[in-house]
Amino acid sequence: MSRSQLIEQIKRKKTFLCIGLDPDVEKIPAFLRDHADPVLEFNKRIIDATKDLCVAYKPNSAFYESRGIKGLQSLISTYNYLPKDCLSIIDAKRGDIGNTSDQYAQAFFNEEASGMGFDAITVTPYMGNDSVTPYLKYEGKWVIILALTSSAGSKDFQYLPTEGGHLYEAVIQKANTWASADRLMYVVGATKREEFTNIRKFAPDNFLLVPGVGAQGGSLEDVCKYGMTKDCGLLVNSSRGIIYASNGEDFAEAARAEALKLQQQMQAELEKAEVI
Amino acid sequence: MSRSQLIEQIKRKKTFLCIGLDPDVEKIPAFLRDHADPVLEFNKRIIDATKDLCVAYKPNSAFYESRGIKGLQSLISTYNYLPKDCLSIIDAKRGDIGNTSDQYAQAFFNEEASGMGFDAITVTPYMGNDSVTPYLKYEGKWVIILALTSSAGSKDFQYLPTEGGHLYEAVIQKANTWASADRLMYVVGATKREEFTNIRKFAPDNFLLVPGVGAQGGSLEDVCKYGMTKDCGLLVNSSRGIIYASNGEDFAEAARAEALKLQQQMQAELEKAEVI
Repeated sequence: MSRSQLIEQIKRKKTFLCIGLDPDVEKIPAFLRDHADPVLEFNKRIIDATKDLCVAYKPNSAFYESRGIKGLQSLISTYNYLPKDCLSIIDAKRGDIGNTSDQYAQAFFNEEASGMGFDAITVTPYMGNDSVTPYLKYEGKWVIILALTSSAGSKDFQYLPTEGGHLYEAVIQKANTWASADRLMYVVGATKREEFTNIRKFAPDNFLLVPGVGAQGGSLEDVCKYGMTKDCGLLVNSSRGIIYASNGEDFAEAARAEALKLQQQMQAELEKAEVI
Repeated sequence: MSRSQLIEQIKRKKTFLCIGLDPDVEKIPAFLRDHADPVLEFNKRIIDATKDLCVAYKPNSAFYESRGIKGLQSLISTYNYLPKDCLSIIDAKRGDIGNTSDQYAQAFFNEEASGMGFDAITVTPYMGNDSVTPYLKYEGKWVIILALTSSAGSKDFQYLPTEGGHLYEAVIQKANTWASADRLMYVVGATKREEFTNIRKFAPDNFLLVPGVGAQGGSLEDVCKYGMTKDCGLLVNSSRGIIYASNGEDFAEAARAEALKLQQQMQAELEKAEVI
């Protein structure tokens, strides 16, 4: 999905919600456990209940890998079920040297080789340019680079002062020399309100993938106030807040209700900023 | 495998060689392609031919993930075939927030859940403490943190000057507050000769996993001169130089010949440093 198609979907659906599909088997409603693939069944019902309210889905690879072959089967089947009008993001946070990144790109972008052809992948920047460029060979696919995350561990290195500013600022400045805002996004945690203005200095046009609204305490209003651009420029992710809204038979309706709340807030923000 | 067991194996086998199992399907000898799982067959023959000459095997997860379900099956079968007297390292370079790292730990350390119970995993440090501590809950398992890599992209961020020295130095200093040298190793590229002395200031006892000897141009002699400790303290990895030594029917013998050359050089270094 290209940048212009993504913006079109945001305007059409009046939302910039990304839903994280991180299904922890122990948290899935008990009544689904008789299905051949309970995780797939869970994801399908979440997707059916929310697909008009979001523009992206983001399965977190770890939650599938932890179950070995069965988990990978659930991930591939989930990939196949994702609606084509939504950006499909694999949250894999890979990062390695060139010949290894080539293999990871194949794992997540080359459907013929691996069974999966996501639109975008999250990548960790520690190994530099090598970690990113192999993915860019796939026309029309996105790389989403970790910049500033919302967990406690972000303080360990991301805020280290360097000659280009804090490390996360140096990452954005350097990575923006590798590709344009048509191919690169950044992960910026929603709890980093005061940093959004700053990040927009270095990344005025890039979409930012923003986790941490809801469960982790970030405010949607603040994210929009400091981070929104004329093209929206934001994908705000919610995982647990939506997919575990209920653990009863009504989990899909409860997920829809939570997603609807966020969509309505997002519509208001898009109108306020005159994006729509 | 504990630190003392690893040191014992090094002294017994007179080697600190780690063999990287990065089987690119296109480079595997053609005559193996008729096997039900050519990658597994390739790995088994490499392992059979080299297991007395090395103390560790390191499958690179990307080379298996790139083939989807079939690739994961090859990885699990390869894991099951690894000799118990060798440290088994999964080169996965994962790194995420706590609840996600929990899932990755399960994927690679919890055999019951995923089919794989490696002794050690490579981890990328960008997200800090969160990326490491979930793995440490597994008694006796190792975390191997990327510090200074040998590829060109290492210059992008790892050498950035920060208040604690270069970023890679800050990473080592901080990570050493999270766990002891009984549980933590660091990846340091073999091409970084001049940095080994420096790294030993911050990590006097940690084992260093050293890729880049051979194909990438690093010198074993220099690595030992500047990086070896009284307990050896080094695992030197070779992947392509060994596993692709020949692409004919003699590939396993050719791999053995290359591994033997390294083992003999390593034995001389261990004797010179009076480790054995």
